[in-house]
Amino acid sequence: MKENAPAKKGLRETIAEMNAMIADKMSKIRFKIPVMSGKGGVGKSFITVNVAVGLASKGKRVAIFDADFHGPSVAKMLNLVDEIPAISSKGIIPVEGPMGVKVISLDMLLEEKDAPTIWRGPLKTNVIRQLLAEVEWGELDYLLIDLPPGTGDEPLSIAQLIPSLTGIIMVTIPSGVSEHVVKKAIVFAEKLKVPIIGIVENMSYFKCPNCGEVYYLLGKGAGERLTKKYGLRLLGKIPLDPYASLSCDEGTPIVLKENCDTSRIILEVVDKLINVVEQAGSDRRV
Amino acid sequence: MKENAPAKKGLRETIAEMNAMIADKMSKIRFKIPVMSGKGGVGKSFITVNVAVGLASKGKRVAIFDADFHGPSVAKMLNLVDEIPAISSKGIIPVEGPMGVKVISLDMLLEEKDAPTIWRGPLKTNVIRQLLAEVEWGELDYLLIDLPPGTGDEPLSIAQLIPSLTGIIMVTIPSGVSEHVVKKAIVFAEKLKVPIIGIVENMSYFKCPNCGEVYYLLGKGAGERLTKKYGLRLLGKIPLDPYASLSCDEGTPIVLKENCDTSRIILEVVDKLINVVEQAGSDRRV
Repeated sequence: MKENAPAKKGLRETIAEMNAMIADKMSKIRFKIPVMSGKGGVGKSFITVNVAVGLASKGKRVAIFDADFHGPSVAKMLNLVDEIPAISSKGIIPVEGPMGVKVISLDMLLEEKDAPTIWRGPLKTNVIRQLLAEVEWGELDYLLIDLPPGTGDEPLSIAQLIPSLTGIIMVTIPSGVSEHVVKKAIVFAEKLKVPIIGIVENMSYFKCPNCGEVYYLLGKGAGERLTKKYGLRLLGKIPLDPYASLSCDEGTPIVLKENCDTSRIILEVVDKLINVVEQAGSDRRV
Repeated sequence: MKENAPAKKGLRETIAEMNAMIADKMSKIRFKIPVMSGKGGVGKSFITVNVAVGLASKGKRVAIFDADFHGPSVAKMLNLVDEIPAISSKGIIPVEGPMGVKVISLDMLLEEKDAPTIWRGPLKTNVIRQLLAEVEWGELDYLLIDLPPGTGDEPLSIAQLIPSLTGIIMVTIPSGVSEHVVKKAIVFAEKLKVPIIGIVENMSYFKCPNCGEVYYLLGKGAGERLTKKYGLRLLGKIPLDPYASLSCDEGTPIVLKENCDTSRIILEVVDKLINVVEQAGSDRRV
């Protein structure tokens, strides 16, 4: 809030002022990309974190906004849970993770880490609006927005509050159940007229390191079926990897690991992403 | 709505009437058990469906209310997606799945199956209230309620609308990230004074059927750590099994499969559950 603001400013003026602040802050960011999935637990935060660090490893200026209020995981996956964002005259300053990736997560702004955010929808929209207005990201190439599962208040608010979203990265696992739910997220994106950059199929398969046998532990083929049905790009298929989960728990993104198949596959997704969005037209849509 | 209701009934009267209908319907159900997890994709619906069918296979009268509006999976996992609940003078009649398990899922009430429910919180609360008031479950031993991930509007509404919840089954996967998020759900349940029956750790490990090697693909130990920290029961650890995902996509619960380790482990969870809730005191709390 500005110090010289009138004391009795109405709600409508406050919202209009915040929206203007959002427009100003977002104008300094080239590509604004929500990472979404209809279904929870498909590894949305895992993809967000690793694609962000992968982009940064290729010289891009990158930030993550963790908008998954009820299940924020980004800070934990980057070992930033105990970091507290500073407040400057310009706004809230994001903390910095591996490769200089800037991060704001609600987790960092809560006093009690184990406390749940028992918030109803309209309150979440207000918090998203305020954070988008107040966080000082600075000049960025990429802002990745980790959305909660589903098609509820948070994705709706993000789509309405950020003026020119570049496009969505849609994450699925290979099962038919996930396909069924992610379809809804795709239709949601279409209804809100936000383009979809492509689909990442996560936990696609597991290759036993001991005997080489390949298993489809979480179903098979949802990525291909969804890309075919909706005419979308498949950005990549990431295998199940015991080290992937360990890396999340340890806060060290697997994409930084050398001589690792999973890391190599994620970097291919990053290259494809850069290729698609940076070659798109000047309207910043894909 | 009753036909002889006054034409201009106020919102408050309507809500009071609905709450009375809910109290009446819920009084015919012995055990009302939400299945919850802070985190999405931990297999909450898989556990709900298989525990429900497992209970029914032991002679219990069982129903499932799928309250995961944005990612409803229960109908798909029971091959009931194309079923349409009938409407009688008593209310909405649930459809019947394997072993006579009664099911109501929002999926069944939507015209367009791929359409997302782009609903804000207050609307979801109204729909939950209306369904709880209107669905004619009849006399039941168990009503399992599949909640969406997180601690948002839906779990909050369920906790406030259903008078005497027996207790929550909390589902986690073994990773530290899941543990971090499920902690919030546990604190949420404590704040709302709903007891927790116990924790199910899903996708605990994978034993390669070819070479017998055991892998912890999604982390390790969250179930034990959570039960220890919060003094809770561990109801069981369900392994990753290629057939589990296949059974969900095919709509045939794995718990019905014979000579199957995963099925046997789920039936042990069911026995433990029966043991805990049916031996609890007359206040129906665990």
